[in-house]
Amino acid sequence: MRDARSRVVIENVEPEIDGGRFPVKRVVGERVVVEADVFADGHDELACVLCHRAAGEDVWHEVPMRPLLDDRWRGEFQVDEVGRHQYTVQAWVDHFHTWTRDLVRRLAAGQDVTADLQVGATLVAAAAARAEGSAAERLRETARLLTTRRGERAALSRELAALMAAHPDRCHGTRYERELEVQVQRRLARFSAWYEMFPRSAAPELGRHGTFDDVRARLPYVAGMGFDVLYLPPIHPIGRAFRKGANNSVKAGPDAVGSPWAIGGSEGGHRAVHPDLGTLDDFRRLVEEARRHGLEIAIDLAYQASPDHPYAREHPEWFRTRPDGTIQYAENPPKKYQDIYPFDFESPEWRSLWTELRDVVTFWVEQGVRTFRVDNPHTKPFAFWEWLIAGVRRDHPDVILLSEAFTRPRVMYHLAKLGFDQSYTYFAWRNQAWELREYLTELTRTEAREYFRPNFWPNTPDILTEALQTGGRAASALRLVLAATLAASYGIYGPVFELAETTPLQPGREEYLDSEKYEVRHWDLDRPLSLRPLITKVNRIRRQHPALQQDRTLRFLQTDNERLLAYAKTSEDGSDVIVVVVNLDPLWKQAGWVEVPVAPRAGHPPYPAEDLLNGGRYVWRTDGWNYVELDPAVTPAHVMQVRRPLLPEAR
Amino acid sequence: MRDARSRVVIENVEPEIDGGRFPVKRVVGERVVVEADVFADGHDELACVLCHRAAGEDVWHEVPMRPLLDDRWRGEFQVDEVGRHQYTVQAWVDHFHTWTRDLVRRLAAGQDVTADLQVGATLVAAAAARAEGSAAERLRETARLLTTRRGERAALSRELAALMAAHPDRCHGTRYERELEVQVQRRLARFSAWYEMFPRSAAPELGRHGTFDDVRARLPYVAGMGFDVLYLPPIHPIGRAFRKGANNSVKAGPDAVGSPWAIGGSEGGHRAVHPDLGTLDDFRRLVEEARRHGLEIAIDLAYQASPDHPYAREHPEWFRTRPDGTIQYAENPPKKYQDIYPFDFESPEWRSLWTELRDVVTFWVEQGVRTFRVDNPHTKPFAFWEWLIAGVRRDHPDVILLSEAFTRPRVMYHLAKLGFDQSYTYFAWRNQAWELREYLTELTRTEAREYFRPNFWPNTPDILTEALQTGGRAASALRLVLAATLAASYGIYGPVFELAETTPLQPGREEYLDSEKYEVRHWDLDRPLSLRPLITKVNRIRRQHPALQQDRTLRFLQTDNERLLAYAKTSEDGSDVIVVVVNLDPLWKQAGWVEVPVAPRAGHPPYPAEDLLNGGRYVWRTDGWNYVELDPAVTPAHVMQVRRPLLPEAR
Repeated sequence: MRDARSRVVIENVEPEIDGGRFPVKRVVGERVVVEADVFADGHDELACVLCHRAAGEDVWHEVPMRPLLDDRWRGEFQVDEVGRHQYTVQAWVDHFHTWTRDLVRRLAAGQDVTADLQVGATLVAAAAARAEGSAAERLRETARLLTTRRGERAALSRELAALMAAHPDRCHGTRYERELEVQVQRRLARFSAWYEMFPRSAAPELGRHGTFDDVRARLPYVAGMGFDVLYLPPIHPIGRAFRKGANNSVKAGPDAVGSPWAIGGSEGGHRAVHPDLGTLDDFRRLVEEARRHGLEIAIDLAYQASPDHPYAREHPEWFRTRPDGTIQYAENPPKKYQDIYPFDFESPEWRSLWTELRDVVTFWVEQGVRTFRVDNPHTKPFAFWEWLIAGVRRDHPDVILLSEAFTRPRVMYHLAKLGFDQSYTYFAWRNQAWELREYLTELTRTEAREYFRPNFWPNTPDILTEALQTGGRAASALRLVLAATLAASYGIYGPVFELAETTPLQPGREEYLDSEKYEVRHWDLDRPLSLRPLITKVNRIRRQHPALQQDRTLRFLQTDNERLLAYAKTSEDGSDVIVVVVNLDPLWKQAGWVEVPVAPRAGHPPYPAEDLLNGGRYVWRTDGWNYVELDPAVTPAHVMQVRRPLLPEAR
Repeated sequence: MRDARSRVVIENVEPEIDGGRFPVKRVVGERVVVEADVFADGHDELACVLCHRAAGEDVWHEVPMRPLLDDRWRGEFQVDEVGRHQYTVQAWVDHFHTWTRDLVRRLAAGQDVTADLQVGATLVAAAAARAEGSAAERLRETARLLTTRRGERAALSRELAALMAAHPDRCHGTRYERELEVQVQRRLARFSAWYEMFPRSAAPELGRHGTFDDVRARLPYVAGMGFDVLYLPPIHPIGRAFRKGANNSVKAGPDAVGSPWAIGGSEGGHRAVHPDLGTLDDFRRLVEEARRHGLEIAIDLAYQASPDHPYAREHPEWFRTRPDGTIQYAENPPKKYQDIYPFDFESPEWRSLWTELRDVVTFWVEQGVRTFRVDNPHTKPFAFWEWLIAGVRRDHPDVILLSEAFTRPRVMYHLAKLGFDQSYTYFAWRNQAWELREYLTELTRTEAREYFRPNFWPNTPDILTEALQTGGRAASALRLVLAATLAASYGIYGPVFELAETTPLQPGREEYLDSEKYEVRHWDLDRPLSLRPLITKVNRIRRQHPALQQDRTLRFLQTDNERLLAYAKTSEDGSDVIVVVVNLDPLWKQAGWVEVPVAPRAGHPPYPAEDLLNGGRYVWRTDGWNYVELDPAVTPAHVMQVRRPLLPEAR
């Protein structure tokens, strides 16, 4: 028999991921809004609190929860420190509240309440016994007062309500059966602009292999555009065996530089730097100098080895062996990738492999790196990542990991649940308005938003979409604005992106011609048609507007032209409202009406809307519908600041 | 470190109620379709099985699950015995399947597969070691064969695939972390037609108090209409203190019979029968005779006492006391119900109270009762019901409980989760087409369908809706058809219902005038306008058509007239298709077009649709849209049998 007097049920607590198996994610300064179904038998009033604490704290903090409709309750707290936080819900029957509610009804009906005041006096006296000091004294006095002539007034006083609320009888209360967790990260996990570049292409002179020092010289360029993270593909020695030549050709000449993802050579493996890039000292100097520019250096965690990697000699037990005794290279039958050895995570020696791979992360953390882009995490076991991330976070909770898992939705979401802070997405292939609405609604309105933080990339070294190939510079511009305003985190692979270099290896293939993955390239950053000014402006708007620094408030607006995608974002406190209208057509001017449902005011005067991207102020109508015209030859979008609160959405 | 080689994740198993805290419900012969997200890292093939067993069985039965889209898998099993059953999911990486898949690709590309056949031979030899007898022998032979010239053919043979599937390597498999439960009940829990009547009004002569023997004489009438359950309001002695008179008047004359819910008098309490109804022997005879008519007698579990109940004297500790020492009567301030004492479930003596109330159920089970209607369960603690139901089911798993909780949705659903087999609903107050669609969609398409079995009542002794008061006989007829065809379980409170007695105490109040709750009434069952023939026909159709014996397949059909509600139900095997079109307007003829999306056949000839309710065959068009016209003076509805499978629904 459970004690019948524990009458309150607490269920459907949200957010809660997989029955509390995984934490939800927040950044420092963010709120956690918790809702729960809380109810009991009968008609008694309830009281409900949200309990929260930082992991490791002894005491729980309590904040009251308020009833909404249909037995749903809501409360919230703010998280201010990186690390794990916990929360749960408690509730109990509030007999005093029930009593005052009923007393008011009896009095309104003109009933004699003498007996009821005696019942109330018993409740108050019991609270006095739970209280201390002056509160106990006041409660004792009031209990006496209740049975006198002044009882009615005393019963319904605010002071008594406050004193009773402060000394509730919780002995038959219910505590939600689980303690749920929040993984709190620094703000960069939620709001970040990434720039990817190949350091070996960073030399200012044509023909020379770039170095860390060249990247250092490039920092003002990258920081000047307003990026937060500079991500470098693998910086390690590159294998020679089966090295690939230009455009991924199987026969490489003697000068071929190879793919940076074929990690490991005679000069070392995952802890070494490629000698042509410089030394570890040079790298550390780059990290420090970047920090002075407000940039974090992110490196690539690509867990695989070239045949020349020291691991292949020293730890053959970490690889699978073919019947002839050689190490099994990577395959996607019938394709063979003989320059790459995947690790065998089903090896009996998996423990030492795991430990080594975690120590690789720790090594780079010790060099000052706090941000990692993880190559193909979906081809390594889930349990490995959960273990690795937890281990790294124990000493370095501020490490941020971006998951490069272009794979099925369940797998991408599961990696996010395991601890990856950000994830690549399907954004690059979503071009139509309905596709973008559907995908973004999934990311921002379903439970996924609690653990999956999208990072939108219009291009990567592996992804040159058909839309970019065929749409010219205007396509790159519009995809940039979409990425940077739909998602709080986005990134570009430059300088090809800002230079709108969109020639494919073959038409219809997503590979760049003469890809930097296989050669050293040289770029003229000062080309007149560079998107650099647009990018700079967009990043500046992002930094000035809290509305664009989160994804939860995204909502799509109606248009009467399916080539115009319109959406709004509002800062958490509601004060900053940004409306974006993008022309999805890179070739033709598009015009139409967009509904911006603002809160009406007396007299409904029109109000100004300011285009932060192109300048100019428009006078917008309070009936919601406004005319918009966008010529891709001039601008891909309006990014409007609207100084009116938006109406809540109809469900 | 979890073992890295356990690579498969199993999550989002459905059905699963509150993380497995509550069982799902089925009846004997029903299927349990289970789905789960099952995936691993990388690109290996997986195998997945659904495990199930009756509670208490030692071994698990396994059935294969099949992949759908996006890593979703599905399997099913059937339950054939009343009681608890369990299920869970297991999955593992299927290296042999991966190997054959890759081998096919290599062969298609014309590659040399010598080394691959060696790898395969190792896999097959390992399976041989797990097998026994002739299977082991065949596997050993095949392993040898694989490295010969005939290796390719042997590798892809069906026999080998079957042998390998029968001897998988599951040592690194994943088992879902929870064992989920199914509460299996007899079929009556899902499909039932209830008839409620006051036994004291059952006398054939005017002015006499009815008896159990009179009810016995009424059985052919009730069974003849096709009902399964005959539910009697409380049959116990009725208190005299504060007894209510006709129409709930506070002053009762000496002949007032009182409300049957004011249970308990000098003649006894919850285990006694009202002497005017007869003896316990008479009651048992009624139960037996009813069974011969295919009817179950259901009685009322109303856990409250009149001031004259023996409990009030013998167990004052089960009640709350007022400051003057008297027992607290029921209240809904400012209203007072002095003829009713509620039990105090917060009493320190709750244990003995619980035990007594459970023993009351057991007592009636021993008298042959298997079906109970539970009065106001939402005013007693949830923990009490969970304990009581589990206790009763231990010895009597076939006991069926109908929850009379007209309260907030969360509370109604929670009672269903705790074990009530059926529940009253909001049906009585849903009259518009959109309301009915919305409510039924919630009941049949959300998780609620796994544990909440609706029982639709157009009226009860407490509920005479405005629609019935104002719509005349036609309103009663249409509400009957809606209740009986929308829900597999429904009930009416008669004879007032079939006689279309709809005079309220006051206009706008839901109370019947001269309610049987407070007086003995006498009914002329042979009135010419009785709905008895309609009810008889509807119940016969229900019994003949499996489509109407469950709620899961309900789907609404489009009409171009919002006064016409159209819907279809299909039997689980798809062979029986019933389309119902109801005119929601009791006053005027309504006509319009209804879309019945049938599977097209070559030539698309029209097909016959047979009206089971009114007779007549119609020729319906295969483009889906058909004309319908319904005159409430003639019939409330078409109930059509359609001999074409319905097209699947668009999502």
